[in-house]
Amino acid sequence: MVQVVECIPNFSEGRRAAVVQAISEAIASVESVRLLGEEMDPDHNRAVLTFVGEPDPVVEAAFRAVAEAVERIDLTKHQGEHPRIGAADVVPFVPIANITMEECVDLARELGRRVWEELRVPVYFYAEAALRDDRRLLPSIRKGEFEVLREAMGKDPDRDPDVGDPKIHPTAGATVVGARGPLIAYNVNLATDDLALAQAIAKKIRASSGGFPEIQAKGFSLEDRGQVQVSMNVMNFRVTSVPTVFEAIRKEAEDAGVAIAGSEIVGLVPLEALLDAAEAYLRLEGFQRDQILERRLWE
Amino acid sequence: MVQVVECIPNFSEGRRAAVVQAISEAIASVESVRLLGEEMDPDHNRAVLTFVGEPDPVVEAAFRAVAEAVERIDLTKHQGEHPRIGAADVVPFVPIANITMEECVDLARELGRRVWEELRVPVYFYAEAALRDDRRLLPSIRKGEFEVLREAMGKDPDRDPDVGDPKIHPTAGATVVGARGPLIAYNVNLATDDLALAQAIAKKIRASSGGFPEIQAKGFSLEDRGQVQVSMNVMNFRVTSVPTVFEAIRKEAEDAGVAIAGSEIVGLVPLEALLDAAEAYLRLEGFQRDQILERRLWE
Repeated sequence: MVQVVECIPNFSEGRRAAVVQAISEAIASVESVRLLGEEMDPDHNRAVLTFVGEPDPVVEAAFRAVAEAVERIDLTKHQGEHPRIGAADVVPFVPIANITMEECVDLARELGRRVWEELRVPVYFYAEAALRDDRRLLPSIRKGEFEVLREAMGKDPDRDPDVGDPKIHPTAGATVVGARGPLIAYNVNLATDDLALAQAIAKKIRASSGGFPEIQAKGFSLEDRGQVQVSMNVMNFRVTSVPTVFEAIRKEAEDAGVAIAGSEIVGLVPLEALLDAAEAYLRLEGFQRDQILERRLWE
Repeated sequence: MVQVVECIPNFSEGRRAAVVQAISEAIASVESVRLLGEEMDPDHNRAVLTFVGEPDPVVEAAFRAVAEAVERIDLTKHQGEHPRIGAADVVPFVPIANITMEECVDLARELGRRVWEELRVPVYFYAEAALRDDRRLLPSIRKGEFEVLREAMGKDPDRDPDVGDPKIHPTAGATVVGARGPLIAYNVNLATDDLALAQAIAKKIRASSGGFPEIQAKGFSLEDRGQVQVSMNVMNFRVTSVPTVFEAIRKEAEDAGVAIAGSEIVGLVPLEALLDAAEAYLRLEGFQRDQILERRLWE
């Protein structure tokens, strides 16, 4: 059974296409690794790349990408809306198939060690790979961004990196490496232009205000459609599933006399999340995922 | 993109394990073909093998399996409950991935030609590969079984094979080759022991009594569970989907004041059929199947 891990590194470059291109090529230079997505955001001045493969090649590709970014991006000259502390800012590993979260944490540790030893960029571990509870979330690590961290490192022991000396890389800053579950960008559209309703439902279902765990949600207007949207990040669909939030939103909307217009998945989604939905709605008993014909071909 | 075709040949041998084993080995002797299932039924005196692979290897494996059966099975000494006309009785090809039904029809024609030319077993084409409308269904081809067909061939032009001389093979009979959509064995269990209700619902939904096209259905008792079951063959889930029949049965049961206990898929199911369910229930808009992360890996 082939192990598949996904890596979604974020780089502090969203304007110079040639730089992002060079980073993509560094990833693609590792045989058997597959680049699935490449997004550049000029306002954020940030690029997000997505690639998958078996564990060892994915770590190698992540390292080459970080090395390329360290060489080409100078944070002392970088400005953008998105908070950042490094040229290679955040590098999460996500378990996709036949691999545990623990193994992905090990991959994060391995990459972190190499980034320090070979590139002299200090490393923090976050999410499931965090070594300290207060480093599970990114904002606490990125507090004050590159400019503040540069001054604090070496003075404030609380900001010591998890790997490497407490001295920021002069141009490439520091890098955050971690492991997390697959995130699904999922939106439910309501057949109304009542923004307050979408916002109220978002508040009711999101984790931060006591709703479903692992759900981030906001209400938006879709002006051109005359509809509103509950826009979500499903951070861990094994904890709160896509059909669970869909049904919760449907119930809330119906209680307000509003129908569901539809829903949408933005970007990539793990197959498992869709199969969960099929299984739940069809009330399938005793279903084994290896009954799926294609699975037998692929494994 | 790799083309994947499934083949589910039925052989007139369900008692002598060594014979079925030899046929399985003939299939497995073709590199890159994958044997997924092997079922023997002593009462029916029949075996059903399931294998998949790319088109050319699958045809080669099907041919080797038929040749093995022709050599080892003597229909003049065969008895069993299931109707049959040949040692290799029925050989359907099913399109699974990146292949059209038309291409599967071509594979059926190719196999049929080889079975006649190299094994001297006359061949009929059925289902989507049928050359005559009255040969789309198996019962019309198998009328009277081996014993009647042996006498009729050469006398009744209506029973002439589609390939080969109108003279049955003395021990291996004739073989039916075809192409069809993937069949899903799907059952919905009702929280009642009222068999008449399951039978009434089955009658209402099945194609033969004016219900949904491509649905076969029967009502059964599940004695040990104290429940009843609507047991179905979903012959073409692209015409009538799994969620369509599930919802129809749910509505009928609820109208009779009975709840759904659950549903079950027996054996293999194409991924597509489950994705259809997820898409329908979540009311997904603009969803592209290549948003599924694993799909990008597999294609």
